[in-house]
Amino acid sequence: MDRRSGEVAVIFASWRTGADEGGYAAAAAAMEALAARQPGYRGIESARGPDGFGITVSYWADEAAATAWRDQPDHAAIRDAGRARWYRRYTVTVARVERDYGWTAA
Amino acid sequence: MDRRSGEVAVIFASWRTGADEGGYAAAAAAMEALAARQPGYRGIESARGPDGFGITVSYWADEAAATAWRDQPDHAAIRDAGRARWYRRYTVTVARVERDYGWTAA
Repeated sequence: MDRRSGEVAVIFASWRTGADEGGYAAAAAAMEALAARQPGYRGIESARGPDGFGITVSYWADEAAATAWRDQPDHAAIRDAGRARWYRRYTVTVARVERDYGWTAA
Repeated sequence: MDRRSGEVAVIFASWRTGADEGGYAAAAAAMEALAARQPGYRGIESARGPDGFGITVSYWADEAAATAWRDQPDHAAIRDAGRARWYRRYTVTVARVERDYGWTAA
């Protein structure tokens, strides 16, 4: 609801292994904090169900900001750890925001 | 990982009330099945955590297909029920897919 047209949405869908829950939770929190300090950061939302499937969407001011986040060295290192331990599979879809709307209960 | 450039991603983020869990689950399953029968449907992914926050991303061949899904009468009726019973808040962000990639454990 506070997205602007032209922002970049990075949709990260992941299937957890179930291994190392504590390490994963700590790393996930650290990555959200790190993302929030990146230039062009516009927000992040994340949900994961009991089946281990999760979706995290991060929003960026533009393509350059999204790419800089992908290439951020600590982020890249955590990604390697994710492949080794936490994830069975993931997909990343990069999309350009066109519009948004929302509703909140009165 | 099977997204095509130009597809439309509809990112639905929602905060559940916690009420009527059975009715909600049945409606959510019915909506996923209904979406899958719509022209231009390209896939759907959904995750909801124990805190009641969830993200569902549906993918559509183009803007016309995404708009037709928004306006589908049964979908609209369920949306009204969602506002009355199941959701405290939701946001919908429409974005145009630019690229995607993925990784699967060997």
